[in-house]
Amino acid sequence: MRTRAAVALEAGKPLEVMEVELDGPKAGEVLVEIKATGLCHTDEFTRSGDDPEGIFPAILGHEGAGVVLEVGEGVTTLKPGDHVIPLYTPECRECASCLSGKTNLCTAIRNTQGKGLMPDGTTRFKMLDGTPIHHYMGCSTFANHTVMPEIALAKVREDAPFDKICYIGCGVTTGIGAVINTAGVEIGSTAAVFGLGGIGLNVIQGLRMAGCDKIIGVDLNDDKAEMAKKFGMTHFVNPSKVDNTVQAIVDLTKTEKDHLGGVDYSFDATGNVKVMRDALECSHRGWGVSVIIGVAPAGAEISTRPFQLVTGRVWKGTAFGGAKGRTDVPKFVDWYMDGKIEIDSMITHKLTLDEINHGFELMHKGESIRAVVEF
Amino acid sequence: MRTRAAVALEAGKPLEVMEVELDGPKAGEVLVEIKATGLCHTDEFTRSGDDPEGIFPAILGHEGAGVVLEVGEGVTTLKPGDHVIPLYTPECRECASCLSGKTNLCTAIRNTQGKGLMPDGTTRFKMLDGTPIHHYMGCSTFANHTVMPEIALAKVREDAPFDKICYIGCGVTTGIGAVINTAGVEIGSTAAVFGLGGIGLNVIQGLRMAGCDKIIGVDLNDDKAEMAKKFGMTHFVNPSKVDNTVQAIVDLTKTEKDHLGGVDYSFDATGNVKVMRDALECSHRGWGVSVIIGVAPAGAEISTRPFQLVTGRVWKGTAFGGAKGRTDVPKFVDWYMDGKIEIDSMITHKLTLDEINHGFELMHKGESIRAVVEF
Repeated sequence: MRTRAAVALEAGKPLEVMEVELDGPKAGEVLVEIKATGLCHTDEFTRSGDDPEGIFPAILGHEGAGVVLEVGEGVTTLKPGDHVIPLYTPECRECASCLSGKTNLCTAIRNTQGKGLMPDGTTRFKMLDGTPIHHYMGCSTFANHTVMPEIALAKVREDAPFDKICYIGCGVTTGIGAVINTAGVEIGSTAAVFGLGGIGLNVIQGLRMAGCDKIIGVDLNDDKAEMAKKFGMTHFVNPSKVDNTVQAIVDLTKTEKDHLGGVDYSFDATGNVKVMRDALECSHRGWGVSVIIGVAPAGAEISTRPFQLVTGRVWKGTAFGGAKGRTDVPKFVDWYMDGKIEIDSMITHKLTLDEINHGFELMHKGESIRAVVEF
Repeated sequence: MRTRAAVALEAGKPLEVMEVELDGPKAGEVLVEIKATGLCHTDEFTRSGDDPEGIFPAILGHEGAGVVLEVGEGVTTLKPGDHVIPLYTPECRECASCLSGKTNLCTAIRNTQGKGLMPDGTTRFKMLDGTPIHHYMGCSTFANHTVMPEIALAKVREDAPFDKICYIGCGVTTGIGAVINTAGVEIGSTAAVFGLGGIGLNVIQGLRMAGCDKIIGVDLNDDKAEMAKKFGMTHFVNPSKVDNTVQAIVDLTKTEKDHLGGVDYSFDATGNVKVMRDALECSHRGWGVSVIIGVAPAGAEISTRPFQLVTGRVWKGTAFGGAKGRTDVPKFVDWYMDGKIEIDSMITHKLTLDEINHGFELMHKGESIRAVVEF
C-alpha cells in the first residue's frame, strides 16, 4: 500500500513529506493507522545529526497512537479495530530481561530495532523508487500507517482521544514512570526536578501523584515556573540567580530535625552531564536517589567523587520510565481518563503532517511543551 | 590514668609507642580496655599523610575489641565488664538518619568525630607534657585504653575471642555488609569482586553466604586467587592477562537464556576510580548494581557515560557495610561463633603494640591479610 510520511532523508535536513510504499505485516507484525503523534526531543536528536547512531533515510517518530488495520500470521493479542500505542521499548514477556522482573528493557528485538529494521532484518517502508526506508525506534509514527511487531503495541481503551494519549507513548510515561517505577518515591518525600520541559513537568506531576511534600523545580528560565506550579511544583530555583544550586536545594530542605538537608529524590530532565552531577549531589546523604532521564550528547560523561556514593547516595537512570509497555501503558491511559494524569494543557500545538518541520522550530524556540501531528 | 598507645605524631612518620594520659569518661562516655585491634588500610591512609583530613597528633586505630572498665554519668546500656566492639559509625537511634530506617550513617557525633574530638569538643588523650592528642574515627584503638561515647560501642557476647572479633569492627562487617545490607544480593545471583585483599575476601564470603551461583574475583595478583577460592570465589580474572576485563566478566556470565551477560552485582574493593568504572560497566544491563567500597585518593573522581545508568545499572556505595553498629555487630559476632562467618584464616599476623609499625610494612608488602595487635 501507499501512505504519506515525513521522511528524514539525511542528517540535519528538514523532513520531507511524501508518499511512500508500505508492505503489509509479516508474521508477528501488525499494520497500524497512526492517528496522532507527538514530536519529541529524541526525534530531533536524530534528525539533527547529533545522534551518532542515526540511520538515514528513515521515518522518525515514536510517540503515537492509532488503530490496528491488519494483523500478520500468528498475531493473537490484537485484532483490526483495536486502539494501540506503539512502544519503542517492547515487552515480549519471554526474554531474560522481561522474565527478570527487574527491568523493562526487553531485548527480544533489540538488535534489529537498533539498525532501523523489523525483526526479520528488512524494512517495510520504501521510497516509490524502491529504496528502503529505515524504521526508527521500532515505531516510525511520522507516517499515516506503519508496521510494528505485536510485542511493541500496547492495546488501550477505545474512548481515549488519540491526540492526547499519544503523549503517553513517550513523555508522560517517561516522566511519571521515573517517579513511580524507577525511584519508587514514597508519600511525604522531598524531590528536585532539573529541567522544566515536557519531561520535567511529567516528573513533577508524578511526584504530586506520589504524595511528595516538597517538589523543587530547577530551570534557567523563570518563565517555566508558572506552568510547573500548576503541575505541583512547590519551590523554584533558577541556577543563574543563586551562588550554588546544590546548596540552594539543600537549604530548602533543611529542617529542625534534619540539619543536613538534601532531597530524598532528584531527577535530571536536561541531558546535561554537569546538571546530572548537581542532581546527584543535592540528594540527601545516606539515602538520596538520583535518576538520570535526559539523553546526553554523544561521548559526554558523568562524574563525581566516589565519596558521594560511599556516603549513601544512589545514582541510577531510567528509560521509558521503567514502564513495561504492554502492561503499564494501558494503565496510564486509564489514569488519564480518570483524571489522575493531566495531559491536555501540555499539548500546546496541533499540526498537520505537512507542518511537521514547524513543530521542530517550536521545540527549538521553547514555545511548545508538546506539538502533536494529527493525521 | 596513664596508658600505652601508638601515637601518630606527624603525617608520614612511623607511629611512636609511648605512655599517654587518658582522662576518665565524661557523661555519656565509656572507658574501654582495648584487648586487640586490627590494622586497616584506612589507618595507613591517614598515617601516611594521604588523607587530606588527617589530624595530628592522633591515636589511630578503629578496628578493636575490648572490655568496659568504667562508665560515665547517664550511661545505661553498658556496665563494667561488658565486652564491646568500638564503632566508627555510631548508632544513636535518635537522629534523622537513624530514624530514617534507610541508612546507617548516624549523624549524632559526626562533626566532632571528624575533628578528632569527643562530642563535647575536647580530647581525653594528652601527651605527658599536656599536649592534647586527637581521637581517630571516634575510636583510637591503637591504645591499651580509650574513651568512647556509649552510642559508639556495640555490646557483644563474652565468649568471643577479642583477637578475632576485632576484625568485625571494620573489615568483616564492611565486606559482608556490602553484600547483604547495601546490595541486597539474592540466592542464585552472579557477582564480581574487584580486589582480593581483606575487604574483597569478606565480600566473597558474604556472597557465598547469600547463595551466589557465580562469584568472579578480579585481581592483578594471581597469588590472591587461592585464598579467595577458599572463601567461595568460583572464577578468577587477572586484568593483566585479558584484553578487556569488562568483556571477560561479561563472557563468563553469558548463558543460553541470556546472551547479554554481565553480573547482577559488582563490588569495588580497590579504591581505584578506573576499577570502579569497570565494576559498574561489567554489571548487567537492566538491573546490575555496582557498590563502591574502596576509599579513593583525595580529589579522584568516578566517571562513566550516563547511558550505563539509563540502561538500568545502579551505582551506589557503602560505608561500614551499611551496618547499624549496635544492632548488627553483635549479630555478626554470633555468626562468627556459629561458624557462619570465617575469620581465623584471615588473621595472618599477631603483633605486640611495640611491633605495630611492622604491621604496616606487612600491609605494604601484601604479606598480611590482617595483622592484629594484642595488648
